[in-house]
Amino acid sequence: MKRKGVLVVVSGFSGVGKGTIMRRLIEKYEGYALSISATTRAPRDGETDGKEYFFHTREEFRQMISRDELVEYACYCDNYYGTPRNYVEEQMARGKDIILEIEIQGALKIKAKYPDALLLFVMPPSGDALRQRLTDRGTESAEVIEARLERAKAEADGIESYDYILVNDNLEDCVDRMHELIRCQHWQVGNNEEFIDKVRTEIKGF
Amino acid sequence: MKRKGVLVVVSGFSGVGKGTIMRRLIEKYEGYALSISATTRAPRDGETDGKEYFFHTREEFRQMISRDELVEYACYCDNYYGTPRNYVEEQMARGKDIILEIEIQGALKIKAKYPDALLLFVMPPSGDALRQRLTDRGTESAEVIEARLERAKAEADGIESYDYILVNDNLEDCVDRMHELIRCQHWQVGNNEEFIDKVRTEIKGF
Repeated sequence: MKRKGVLVVVSGFSGVGKGTIMRRLIEKYEGYALSISATTRAPRDGETDGKEYFFHTREEFRQMISRDELVEYACYCDNYYGTPRNYVEEQMARGKDIILEIEIQGALKIKAKYPDALLLFVMPPSGDALRQRLTDRGTESAEVIEARLERAKAEADGIESYDYILVNDNLEDCVDRMHELIRCQHWQVGNNEEFIDKVRTEIKGF
Repeated sequence: MKRKGVLVVVSGFSGVGKGTIMRRLIEKYEGYALSISATTRAPRDGETDGKEYFFHTREEFRQMISRDELVEYACYCDNYYGTPRNYVEEQMARGKDIILEIEIQGALKIKAKYPDALLLFVMPPSGDALRQRLTDRGTESAEVIEARLERAKAEADGIESYDYILVNDNLEDCVDRMHELIRCQHWQVGNNEEFIDKVRTEIKGF
């Protein structure tokens, strides 16, 4: 049965471990692609165009916006970041499940354009666990930790816009659950229109 | 993490094997309950009140309707059939995933009352496979088979109202997939309000 890939949006509290979960998912299971964002920010040392980001000038980025070539975009710290439509739709057409890590405004834009997209929100098992994770890193100043906790307070209000929560209690369990949630979406009615139409036509022909 | 059970509605083409799938699911996995319908039809030999059905007089059934004690009901062949709210809600409160086998009108009523309900539509792998199943039984007359195929034609138009399809290609695979689909719903945002509120309150308190 031929079917297109699932578009997966992953959001979650700053520091909850989204990056680690996604890297492990791709390492452990086949059939996934990570979306690569377009940005106007300058490449850092070691970053390659088309790998970490697609690097663009502001003028190019503005043209991409006006040509509707981005499924969502936002401006942070005076730089634009966006998700190129082409790359996402090519992966889906090839049957790959494509994963986007974006925050809530972007997630809602995706859901509006792709109603069958799967919106996941990664949560810590408790508030204390989140604070612990942020503190344990030991690499960030008290102010950075404080800023992240403040951001978490705002992020906490958007959870109800998502389809499922993913509790990061244990990395492997969490990754397996994410895989299971995505695999289930393959059976969503909207992802099987071709098959449904085929069987329906056969039955109506009796 | 305490959470309530999932309300699962199973519909599908007449003859597709819904009953067999559900019986096998309950035999193979724990945590499920089958909904027991209320009816005004007379008990048949060997049927026990509260097992196959809850048997009621027409007057009792009318009172149940007027007291909003049924989550859905319909009239077939001059008898009423309905799903008692109490039984369904008790099982969900106990954390049991409760399964209702009903047709599309009932399924839509359930979805309107319980937006987090999971609506599954069981499909054959092909139109021919469905016809084959109906013919292979060998117990039904050509007219009965014909009537079932006619019913399937009408049922085929409602598939888009469901959340997921369940393809009955192989019984064990199909049962495992049904279990997986239901288990995934445990992580739906609407089924985790208590946990989400707890973590949100903790984070906001920092």
